[in-house]
Amino acid sequence: MKIIDNLLSTFLQTRSHSEEICAPLQIEDYVVQPIEDVSPPKWHLGHTTWFFEEFILAPYAKGYIRFHPDFAFVFNSYYESIGKRVVRTNRGNLSRPTVSEVYEYRDYVTSHIQSFFEEHNSEKIEKLLEIGIHHEKQHQELLLTDIKFILGNNPLLPKYSDTFTENEDVDETGEYVVMEEGLYSIGFRDNDFCYDNELGAHKVFLQTYAISNKLVTNREYLDFINNKGYENNLLWHAEGWDWVLSNTISAPQYWHKIDDMYYQYTLGGLQPLQLSAPVTHISYYEAFAFAQWRGERLPTEFEWEAAQSFFTWGKRWEWTESAYLPYPDYAKAPGALGEYNGKFMVNQKVLRGGSIATPNKHTRPTYRNFFHPQLRWQFNGLRLVKKA
Amino acid sequence: MKIIDNLLSTFLQTRSHSEEICAPLQIEDYVVQPIEDVSPPKWHLGHTTWFFEEFILAPYAKGYIRFHPDFAFVFNSYYESIGKRVVRTNRGNLSRPTVSEVYEYRDYVTSHIQSFFEEHNSEKIEKLLEIGIHHEKQHQELLLTDIKFILGNNPLLPKYSDTFTENEDVDETGEYVVMEEGLYSIGFRDNDFCYDNELGAHKVFLQTYAISNKLVTNREYLDFINNKGYENNLLWHAEGWDWVLSNTISAPQYWHKIDDMYYQYTLGGLQPLQLSAPVTHISYYEAFAFAQWRGERLPTEFEWEAAQSFFTWGKRWEWTESAYLPYPDYAKAPGALGEYNGKFMVNQKVLRGGSIATPNKHTRPTYRNFFHPQLRWQFNGLRLVKKA
Amino acid sequence: MKIIDNLLSTFLQTRSHSEEICAPLQIEDYVVQPIEDVSPPKWHLGHTTWFFEEFILAPYAKGYIRFHPDFAFVFNSYYESIGKRVVRTNRGNLSRPTVSEVYEYRDYVTSHIQSFFEEHNSEKIEKLLEIGIHHEKQHQELLLTDIKFILGNNPLLPKYSDTFTENEDVDETGEYVVMEEGLYSIGFRDNDFCYDNELGAHKVFLQTYAISNKLVTNREYLDFINNKGYENNLLWHAEGWDWVLSNTISAPQYWHKIDDMYYQYTLGGLQPLQLSAPVTHISYYEAFAFAQWRGERLPTEFEWEAAQSFFTWGKRWEWTESAYLPYPDYAKAPGALGEYNGKFMVNQKVLRGGSIATPNKHTRPTYRNFFHPQLRWQFNGLRLVKKA
Amino acid sequence: MKIIDNLLSTFLQTRSHSEEICAPLQIEDYVVQPIEDVSPPKWHLGHTTWFFEEFILAPYAKGYIRFHPDFAFVFNSYYESIGKRVVRTNRGNLSRPTVSEVYEYRDYVTSHIQSFFEEHNSEKIEKLLEIGIHHEKQHQELLLTDIKFILGNNPLLPKYSDTFTENEDVDETGEYVVMEEGLYSIGFRDNDFCYDNELGAHKVFLQTYAISNKLVTNREYLDFINNKGYENNLLWHAEGWDWVLSNTISAPQYWHKIDDMYYQYTLGGLQPLQLSAPVTHISYYEAFAFAQWRGERLPTEFEWEAAQSFFTWGKRWEWTESAYLPYPDYAKAPGALGEYNGKFMVNQKVLRGGSIATPNKHTRPTYRNFFHPQLRWQFNGLRLVKKA
Repeated sequence: MKIIDNLLSTFLQTRSHSEEICAPLQIEDYVVQPIEDVSPPKWHLGHTTWFFEEFILAPYAKGYIRFHPDFAFVFNSYYESIGKRVVRTNRGNLSRPTVSEVYEYRDYVTSHIQSFFEEHNSEKIEKLLEIGIHHEKQHQELLLTDIKFILGNNPLLPKYSDTFTENEDVDETGEYVVMEEGLYSIGFRDNDFCYDNELGAHKVFLQTYAISNKLVTNREYLDFINNKGYENNLLWHAEGWDWVLSNTISAPQYWHKIDDMYYQYTLGGLQPLQLSAPVTHISYYEAFAFAQWRGERLPTEFEWEAAQSFFTWGKRWEWTESAYLPYPDYAKAPGALGEYNGKFMVNQKVLRGGSIATPNKHTRPTYRNFFHPQLRWQFNGLRLVKKA
Repeated sequence: MKIIDNLLSTFLQTRSHSEEICAPLQIEDYVVQPIEDVSPPKWHLGHTTWFFEEFILAPYAKGYIRFHPDFAFVFNSYYESIGKRVVRTNRGNLSRPTVSEVYEYRDYVTSHIQSFFEEHNSEKIEKLLEIGIHHEKQHQELLLTDIKFILGNNPLLPKYSDTFTENEDVDETGEYVVMEEGLYSIGFRDNDFCYDNELGAHKVFLQTYAISNKLVTNREYLDFINNKGYENNLLWHAEGWDWVLSNTISAPQYWHKIDDMYYQYTLGGLQPLQLSAPVTHISYYEAFAFAQWRGERLPTEFEWEAAQSFFTWGKRWEWTESAYLPYPDYAKAPGALGEYNGKFMVNQKVLRGGSIATPNKHTRPTYRNFFHPQLRWQFNGLRLVKKA
Repeated sequence: MKIIDNLLSTFLQTRSHSEEICAPLQIEDYVVQPIEDVSPPKWHLGHTTWFFEEFILAPYAKGYIRFHPDFAFVFNSYYESIGKRVVRTNRGNLSRPTVSEVYEYRDYVTSHIQSFFEEHNSEKIEKLLEIGIHHEKQHQELLLTDIKFILGNNPLLPKYSDTFTENEDVDETGEYVVMEEGLYSIGFRDNDFCYDNELGAHKVFLQTYAISNKLVTNREYLDFINNKGYENNLLWHAEGWDWVLSNTISAPQYWHKIDDMYYQYTLGGLQPLQLSAPVTHISYYEAFAFAQWRGERLPTEFEWEAAQSFFTWGKRWEWTESAYLPYPDYAKAPGALGEYNGKFMVNQKVLRGGSIATPNKHTRPTYRNFFHPQLRWQFNGLRLVKKA
Repeated sequence: MKIIDNLLSTFLQTRSHSEEICAPLQIEDYVVQPIEDVSPPKWHLGHTTWFFEEFILAPYAKGYIRFHPDFAFVFNSYYESIGKRVVRTNRGNLSRPTVSEVYEYRDYVTSHIQSFFEEHNSEKIEKLLEIGIHHEKQHQELLLTDIKFILGNNPLLPKYSDTFTENEDVDETGEYVVMEEGLYSIGFRDNDFCYDNELGAHKVFLQTYAISNKLVTNREYLDFINNKGYENNLLWHAEGWDWVLSNTISAPQYWHKIDDMYYQYTLGGLQPLQLSAPVTHISYYEAFAFAQWRGERLPTEFEWEAAQSFFTWGKRWEWTESAYLPYPDYAKAPGALGEYNGKFMVNQKVLRGGSIATPNKHTRPTYRNFFHPQLRWQFNGLRLVKKA
C-alpha cells in the first residue's frame, strides 16, 4: 500500500512539475520549433500525457474513452509500431490543439490514471507507470533546454526566470585522481528503476588513468578560443572540422561577443561570461578539440563510471569518448516500449552525469545519456583525463 | 480637408479591418509558419505597422520615439536598403514579441499616425499614407490565405468562421466572347491610386480571340482528373511535370479524397466538393495543363484586360499566360519604396482579377498580381481562351 | 532529286562537322559532366545519332536492327513519351559505351540513313531528316560551350584550339538607332525550315525606342564592376541578388583576377581580357543589372527583331527582357517531337541573335533561343535600349 | 642491404600491381566518379604517386623537380595541412591530366624514388616508404571496389574480368566456437609494420560468447528478405530504417531481381545469385537487422580479434558492433601523416578481417578497417555471435 501511495504521489508530483516548468511562459512560447531537435513545449506536455494514455489507459482501463481521437496521431513521437505520426519537423507548424486544450488533456489523463491506479494496480501497471514517470522526467529536462533555445534564439533575448541558476563557480584548483588498472564493474545492479541500456552489469578492464575532479571552466575554454583553437584543423575530427566551417562556429552556443567582450545568454537573460563557471553548450567535436589542444583526452564512459565517486558531478552532462552501444546481453523490451533505447545505438556519443536541468533523482552513476556529436543545446560540458 | 478626413478614415478603417480578420484566431494561430510563403498572422500585423513607422513616423514626425528599438529588425520583410532583417524562413520561430505586444504596437503607431497626420499633412505624406494603406490591404488578403493554410494544414482541420463564403456557384452555361483583332489600350490612366507596375499606359495589338465569360468550375476540373490529366506528361510543362512527380500532386490544394468522394477544406471547415463553384488553389502548371487538355489556352494579361468589361470577375485570381514584366517606360520609385514591385519581375506569372479574399476596392481592371508558377495557396483559378 | 541530294549532302556534312568539333579532344574530355547543364561530348554525339535512329530508322526503315538494344535508354534526353532514360545528372557517370563505340554507332546510323533515304524518301521523311539535322546543329553549339566548360573548369586550364577565335573587337563608337512606334511583323514567314516556336507570324505594336547598334564591351562591363555594380542590391532583381550572394559572383564566368589584372579563359587558353571585345558568359541577372546601372534597359525580343536589320549581330546571343512564351496560335507538333519546344515555355528568357559557336546557317532573325536566367555558359552578351 | 632490397622490390611490385589492376579498363573507365565515395581510377593512380612525391621526394631529395606544379593540388586527398585540394566531389569532373599523363607521372616518381632510395636510405626514409607502400595497397583495394561500382552502375553492366573470383562457396554446416570469459590481449605487438590505430596493445575483459566459424551466406540472407526483413521496422536502428525508406532498399547492392530470380553483378558480369557464397555489399544497418532477425548479434571488434584464430577469414570485411575509437594511449603522428587515421574516429564502425579485394599481406588479425554505417560498396559481410 505504501509503495503504491508513493508511486501515485510521485506521479502526481511529476505531472505538476512539468507544468511548473512552463509557468513563466507566454502562450506563444509553447508553440514554436526553431530547429528540428527542439520541440514546442506544448508538444512535450501533450506527448508525455499521450504516453500514459497509449500504454496504460487505452490497453488496460476498461471502457476508457480517449480524450480526442486524433491526439495519438498528433502526440506520438517515434513509436513506429504504434501508427502514423506527425513528422518531427512539422511539430512547430501546428497551432492546434491550443495550449489550454493540452492542459485539459493533461488533467483528463492524470485523473483517469489516478482513479484507474487506485483500483487496478498490479506489478505490470506499476512498471508501466514508473516508466511513464521517468519518461516525463526526461521530457522535463528537454522542456528546459528547448525553452532556452526558443528564447535564446529570439532577437529580443527574453528572460525565462530571475531565479533559475545555470552557472555556479567551480573550485578552479582541481586535481587529477589516479585510477589503477584493473577490472571494474559497470552497469546497474540495484533493484530500483533504471533504463534497459544500463542493465547487464559486467566487468570492464581499465588501464591506469588520471581523471580531473573538476569540470573544464569558461576561463579555460576562452583560452582555447584565444589560442585559435577554432582555426587549427589538426585539433579536430574531419567531420568536426567540416561542421566548424559550414556553420562558422567560433564559440559555444549562446555566447555573444559584443565590443570584444563575451556574454552568455542564460535562462536569466544575457549576462557577462562567468569565467569560473563550467563551460556548457558545446558539441562533442568541440570537447574533443579542446582536449586535443590540452594534450589530454575525454574519459570513456567506463572510466567515468569507475571514478565518479571521487568527484562531484551533476551540473553538466559530460561528453565521453564512448559511442553509445549495447552492453553485453542487452535485450530490447518486446513491443513498442522496446523502441525506447536500442534503436538509437548508432552514431551517437554517451554523456554521463547530469545537469542543472535534470529533475531531482532522475540521474545516477550508471545513467547513460546520448546525443549526436554535433548537438549543443543541452547543458553539457567536459572533464579531462590524462596519462597517470 | 475632406480628402484628408477621407484618407484618415480609410486609414483607420483599414487598421481595424486587419484586426477583424484575426478576431476568430486563437493566440497560437498567430505564431506558426508552416511553409516559407505563409507568414504568421502576428508578423503581418506587425509588418504593416512597421511600414507606417519606418516610412512616415521615423523620417517625418519630429521627436518620434519608436515603440521598440528591435521591431524594425523583426518586422522588415525584404527591404534590403533599410537594413538587417529576420530571414523569411525564421518568422515562424519567433514566439516574441507576443500577440498582445503586437497589438500594443499597432495602437501606438495608429494613434501616432493619426495625430501626426492631423497636424502635418502634405501631398508627400498623403502619398505615403496611401501606399501604406494599400500595402496593408495586400496583407489583409495574405492574412486570409495564410490563415487558411495554417488551419488547413492542421490534422484537426479547425474552422475559421461559419460565415465566410469561399464558394459561390457560377452559371455553368458560359459563353465565349469574341474580341476582334486590333489595338487596345493597356495600363492605368486614371488619377486615383495604382501601383507603379500598372503605369505606362500603352497600346497593344491583339489578334482575334474568344474568351470565356465564366471561370472553370470544380466539375470541369474533376473531369480533367478523371480523365487522368495528372498522369499524362504531354499536357504539362517539363518543370510542371517534375513538380507533379516530386510533390505527388493529384488534385488542387485542400482537396481530400475520402472513401472515393472529394471534399474541400474551406475557411468554414471540411465540406463536400461543390461542383458548380469555380475551381481554386491550383498552380499555374495545373491551369496550363487543364487548358491543354481542353485544347484551349489561358488568356494573356492583355487579352484579359481588353475583354474584362464583358464578364464578371473578382472571385478568383486568374492565372494568365503572361510573365510578370515591366511595361514600356516602367521606372522604379527611388529609394526603398522602389523595391516594391520591380525587383520581382522575373520568373513569375501575372494573375488578373481579384478573389473573395481581396479587400473591398483593392483591385481594378489594370491590377497586376503575380506569383511563382508553382504556388497554390492563394484563391486563384482560371478562365479559358480559344480561337475565334 | 536535286533537293534530296542537297538534303543528304547537308546531312552528311552535319554529321562530319560534329566530329570535327571533337577532333582536338582527348578521350577523357568526352566523358565528364561538371554541372548538370553541361553534357559529356560523347553523349551529344550519341544523342544526335539516337534521334535519327529513333524517329526515322526504327519506325520507317523496314527490318532495321538497332545498333544496340540499350542505347535508346542511354541516349534519350527528355522525351518522356519515348520511354525510360538515364537521369540527366547521371550522364557524366557513364564510362560505357566508350568513345570508340559511340563513333561506330554514328557510322552505323549515318550509313543506314543514307541508304534508306536514297531509296525511300518522301516529304514526311524529308521533314524528319531536316529536323534531325537542325537538332544536331543545335547540339554542335552545345558541344563547343560544354567543351569550354569542361576545359575551363579544369585547374590545368588546357587549350582547346589555337585557331578558334572567340573575341573580335567591336567598333566602340556605337550609335542608337531610333525605331518609330507602330505595328511590326514578328515571326517566321518564309518557306524554309524554322522551329515551331517561330511560327504564327503576327503583328506587334511597339512604342518608340532607341536601340544600340553595338554589343556591350568588356571595357564597359569592367566599368560596372569597378563602380561596385556587384555590391549594389538596388540594381538587381531579388532573385538575382540571392544568386549573386549565394554563389559569390563578382565577374562574368571564366574571368580570372590575377595580381589585380583580369584574364579570360577562352577556347584558346587563358588570355588577358580583351577590352574592346563584347562581354560574354553573363547571366540574365547580370545583363539586367548592368542595364539598370546605365539607366537603360534590355530590348524585348520584338524590339530586337524589328530593328535587327539595322545592326550586325551573330557574335553573342543577346539576352532580351522577354520571357519565353508561345506566339499566338502556337501549337505543338503531335507526339514526341511535340516535346521539342513548347514544354519549356515557362521561367526562361529569350535570347536573340547567334554566337561565334552557332553553326553556319543555323540562326536567323526570327530564331528564338532560350535559357534560364542564371545560366552563363553559353556565349551570350547584351545590347542596350533607351528612350528615344 | 637485404632489407633495403626487399623494401625496394616490394615498392616496385606494389607500383606494378596497381597498374595491373587497371589493365582491363578502357580509358573512359578511369575518369568517372558516380558517387562521392567512389574515386576515378586515374585519381587513385595519381594520388598514391603524389604521396611518395609529397612526403619523400619533395622534402628529402635534393634538387627534386616536381613532375607538374599543379599535381599536388589535383591529387591531394584530405591532408588539410598540406594545402589546397580539389573538393572530393569534383574529382570526376576532371578530364585532365589524361590517363597517359598520369602513367608518365607514375613512371617519373617511381624511378626518382628508386634512384633516391638506392643512395639515401635511412630509417626515416624507410619508414616513409613503408607507409607509402601500405597506403598504395589500401588504394588497390579501393581501385577494385570503385571499378566495380563504376561498371556495375552502368546500364550496360560490362565485365571487368573473366578470371577474378568474388564468390567462393563456404561450408554451410558452420559451428559456434565458445569463448570463455576473461582477459584478452588486443592490439598489435609485433615489430612489423602496422597502422597507428592498432598500437597500444592492451587487455580487454570479455564475457563468455559463442562466435560462428563461418560467414553468413546469400542463402541465409535471402531467407531474411523472404521473411520481410526489409519491411519490419522493429529490426532496424531508427537511422537504418530512415535509410531503408529514403533509398528504397530491398536487397544488397548489386542484386538484380529479374523475373522473380535474383542475379548479382560481379566483376565477372551479371550472374545468378550463388546461394552458398557469403553475402556481400551490405550496410552495417543491414548486418545489424539481419542479426536481430536471427535473435543473435554482431561481434565486437575485440571478440572478433580474440577468436579469429579459430576460424578462417579474409573473403569479406566483417562488420562489427564496435565504433571506430582510439585505443588507450592512442597518439597521432605529428604533422600531416597524423591526419591518416585519428581524424576519422567518430561516426564510423569497425570492420575486421579482409576481403577478396585486399592485396596480399595487407591485412592481419589486428587490422582495423572502418566505414560509415550506410556504405555498401566494399566487399563486406557478417559473422554472427550468440550467447554461449
